[in-house]
Amino acid sequence: MYLTQPLHKALRECPTRTATVFAGRRHTYAQFADRVARLAAGLRALGMQPGDRVGMLSLNSDRYLEYLYAVLWGGGVINPVNIRWSAQEVAYSLDDCDTRILLVDDAFSAYLPDLRAESRSLRTTVYAGDDETPDGMHGYEALVGDHAPMDDAMRHDDDLAGIFYTGGTTGLPKGVMLSHRNLYSDALGTLAAGYRQPAVVGLHAAPLFHVGGIGLTVQLAARLATHVVIPQFTPEGVLEAVSAEGVGETFLVPTMLKRVVEHRSFSDFDTDSLGCVLYGAAPIDSTLLDRATRALPNADFIQLYGMTELSPVATLLPAWCHKPEGRKAGKLLSAGKPVSTAELRIVDPEGRDVETGTVGEIAVRGPTVMQGYWNKPEQTEAALRDGWMHTGDAGYMDADGFLYVVDRLKDMVISGGENVYSVEVENAILKLPQVSACAVIGIPDEDLGERVHAAIVLKEGASLDFETLSRHCRSLIAGYKCPRSMELRDELPLSAAGKLLKFKLREPYWNARERQVS
Amino acid sequence: MYLTQPLHKALRECPTRTATVFAGRRHTYAQFADRVARLAAGLRALGMQPGDRVGMLSLNSDRYLEYLYAVLWGGGVINPVNIRWSAQEVAYSLDDCDTRILLVDDAFSAYLPDLRAESRSLRTTVYAGDDETPDGMHGYEALVGDHAPMDDAMRHDDDLAGIFYTGGTTGLPKGVMLSHRNLYSDALGTLAAGYRQPAVVGLHAAPLFHVGGIGLTVQLAARLATHVVIPQFTPEGVLEAVSAEGVGETFLVPTMLKRVVEHRSFSDFDTDSLGCVLYGAAPIDSTLLDRATRALPNADFIQLYGMTELSPVATLLPAWCHKPEGRKAGKLLSAGKPVSTAELRIVDPEGRDVETGTVGEIAVRGPTVMQGYWNKPEQTEAALRDGWMHTGDAGYMDADGFLYVVDRLKDMVISGGENVYSVEVENAILKLPQVSACAVIGIPDEDLGERVHAAIVLKEGASLDFETLSRHCRSLIAGYKCPRSMELRDELPLSAAGKLLKFKLREPYWNARERQVS
Repeated sequence: MYLTQPLHKALRECPTRTATVFAGRRHTYAQFADRVARLAAGLRALGMQPGDRVGMLSLNSDRYLEYLYAVLWGGGVINPVNIRWSAQEVAYSLDDCDTRILLVDDAFSAYLPDLRAESRSLRTTVYAGDDETPDGMHGYEALVGDHAPMDDAMRHDDDLAGIFYTGGTTGLPKGVMLSHRNLYSDALGTLAAGYRQPAVVGLHAAPLFHVGGIGLTVQLAARLATHVVIPQFTPEGVLEAVSAEGVGETFLVPTMLKRVVEHRSFSDFDTDSLGCVLYGAAPIDSTLLDRATRALPNADFIQLYGMTELSPVATLLPAWCHKPEGRKAGKLLSAGKPVSTAELRIVDPEGRDVETGTVGEIAVRGPTVMQGYWNKPEQTEAALRDGWMHTGDAGYMDADGFLYVVDRLKDMVISGGENVYSVEVENAILKLPQVSACAVIGIPDEDLGERVHAAIVLKEGASLDFETLSRHCRSLIAGYKCPRSMELRDELPLSAAGKLLKFKLREPYWNARERQVS
Repeated sequence: MYLTQPLHKALRECPTRTATVFAGRRHTYAQFADRVARLAAGLRALGMQPGDRVGMLSLNSDRYLEYLYAVLWGGGVINPVNIRWSAQEVAYSLDDCDTRILLVDDAFSAYLPDLRAESRSLRTTVYAGDDETPDGMHGYEALVGDHAPMDDAMRHDDDLAGIFYTGGTTGLPKGVMLSHRNLYSDALGTLAAGYRQPAVVGLHAAPLFHVGGIGLTVQLAARLATHVVIPQFTPEGVLEAVSAEGVGETFLVPTMLKRVVEHRSFSDFDTDSLGCVLYGAAPIDSTLLDRATRALPNADFIQLYGMTELSPVATLLPAWCHKPEGRKAGKLLSAGKPVSTAELRIVDPEGRDVETGTVGEIAVRGPTVMQGYWNKPEQTEAALRDGWMHTGDAGYMDADGFLYVVDRLKDMVISGGENVYSVEVENAILKLPQVSACAVIGIPDEDLGERVHAAIVLKEGASLDFETLSRHCRSLIAGYKCPRSMELRDELPLSAAGKLLKFKLREPYWNARERQVS
């Protein structure tokens, strides 16, 4: 299995089909493959040897896709950099895996002096913006234009394809090593789970540096689809792209979907083409689903659950579970069923299978399980045991084989000796009509060890007092699970990939004190 | 990638789902996995070591599926034996790859004395029938019952999974070596090509020893589907199984499909559940498709083209090409587009790509390409060049990326120095309302080297003279392609997999004389 296979296929099957669309630029598959093979040669000329890491620090663009494929084509290993990180964090990840070449766009050129000062590894920078190439950098278009296309290095199977830094939410980032087989198996397994159209126009609205963006890229490429790219998520950007390019498929997190379907100009755009909305990072609540279904009547909604270490998909909640008869089956709060490539079990702390319906740690085995963490044998050994990736997520499986993710294990609140899964509390709070979003965390409590605390974002113009919240929750869930305190906020802290960053909510309460991880 | 993964998944996701249905016997996935793990232990007790080949000579049954998975679970390599072969041919294939253990059902027990006499390798036989175990054989149910379930040997990826003997139509059979990754990639790539339902009841009507039967098995297993098995194809057997078990998906060759939909009791059966008919070995003609569409209005028709050496699928003709708007696009005579896992090119005898629309040899690269022919380095080298499997099939690709298979290269007729592709002539002949089936071959001709000859099966009660045939063909195709002679036959010789055996038609004309292969 080789991730470059779709380019070879497209050259023979559909060379004139549009491969990338970005900001008015369009390239056919023949042009895309040619640019990829030239850029690969250019990167080789800059010193990239087989297996060498090459980074990119950039908003989404067609060049981001060219970078991904050019590094692989030239035999290198991609290291897509988290655009939300500080220069210090980026430097750590570059140095950790000895990334010497970095591509940077206009949005991040200003970081370069700091980055050069912080990083020991960084030697060569490529300017992937549209202005004149700054001094001391190589020009992207010159690299493409000045080099003849090289042959595909044909790395494959267990050859390393990418290092994806993750875990910035707790401790030092870890470099997740994914092979060609890992990422390609993921796309095939996810597509094989069914319900998908063969050839589509796909939209990259979520960040391409994130493994979800890479996953969508490989899934689209496996169908020789057209990649429409916007620099970063905005509801207008999504609506304009869908309407202008007839986008059939995209990936959003629920908060993004909400902003799209609630956008005041929504009805000015033609969104009939949108046949499939993949979403992840969180389940979709009924209110949002109702609204989204009315707004996008042609769209199938499909949830994907996974993590970087799983390349990334483990389970898929199919479209029918989002439709009236499926919703009656009550699977909407689940993360769906394991895809063909994922064997999934729920284990207790000793690694034994728990009973159906019992909460434990989610563990996954199969061809998408990462090779390990770069240069971190101990953490690799802790996560990978007998081929099983221990996800650190808590969940249970119902009798129909549907997975329910109840929490990150580290997000579980232990209050008065009882385990409280924040998702259950959040679902109760979300039923209040005043609430737009919420997050439940544990904060220090002298009596209980931790107490349940709710951070809440209200709808415009709404108000909520603690008494109302408390009464509402007690009507739905056990007393020990109900919030003992609350804070009202303008917004919740989200990662670039749209994941809620609970550690940021916890920080002010726990200070420098190390929180005990259960 | 490990072919046993679906069993592990089913044990956790759907242990009570029906795994196999055969002749009134039903086993859940929990029972099936238990029997597989016990049979694996039994085979180990009979001497099967990791990597050892184990054969089965049997009609289809639930035990055939248990055999396939038990050998893999126990770390062995399957060698499913062609049930149409003579004892001598079977012995050749057993001895070629040193197969010492053979499972045999009632239908083939009578062959055993001859087989034992012919084969040097064969040591241990297992009786997989339902009567009393004959002397000198081990009983299948005793092997299952007497052994505790063993742990999965977890062979995977490049580990050899099966040896499939092929090529009996010309020269000595060759053992095609397929790995766990080959067969699993094939299923994922074929499913990823879209249009398929996630969980189904599948019917094995075509022989399980054939790679097409194995391919369907892996595709169904990847979706944790129910396998309904009939001993061998009969139209009544298919109709009864579909109606009794609510079969959603099956694989047939067009001649089988024809017999099903033309069956006089067709309307007595409820076939509404049949949502997907996969077919292969030959394109479907419009007359049959019309008839089948009327008979099975809920069914999508999907053509698969491939060969054993490709695990086996290379291209897929999607359902829409079989529907009115797709048929207008004129792709019905094509074999479809390459699946995600298959990179396909058309090459000239020097291995260079030919122009779009030009006939050449079909070559395929990707994760489904076999590891080679067992113990045949020269033939392996001839077939596999730079990772490309040279199929020996002639075809061309149109501008939309659809493949048209015009002939086996060795079936091409060279008449008066012109290449005549028999498929083109056959398609012309099939337009005659009198004709039920036909095959075109080259036979010796003093002037032309070879001349075009048609073997024709007429519809019941129809008649046809050569003058009518000749006039009809000349109105459709060039003169040099038209048959110079014809024979009327009651039926055409077919292989167990439903493939036309042209060498049997050629035999009487070419006698012992070695036909020059172009």
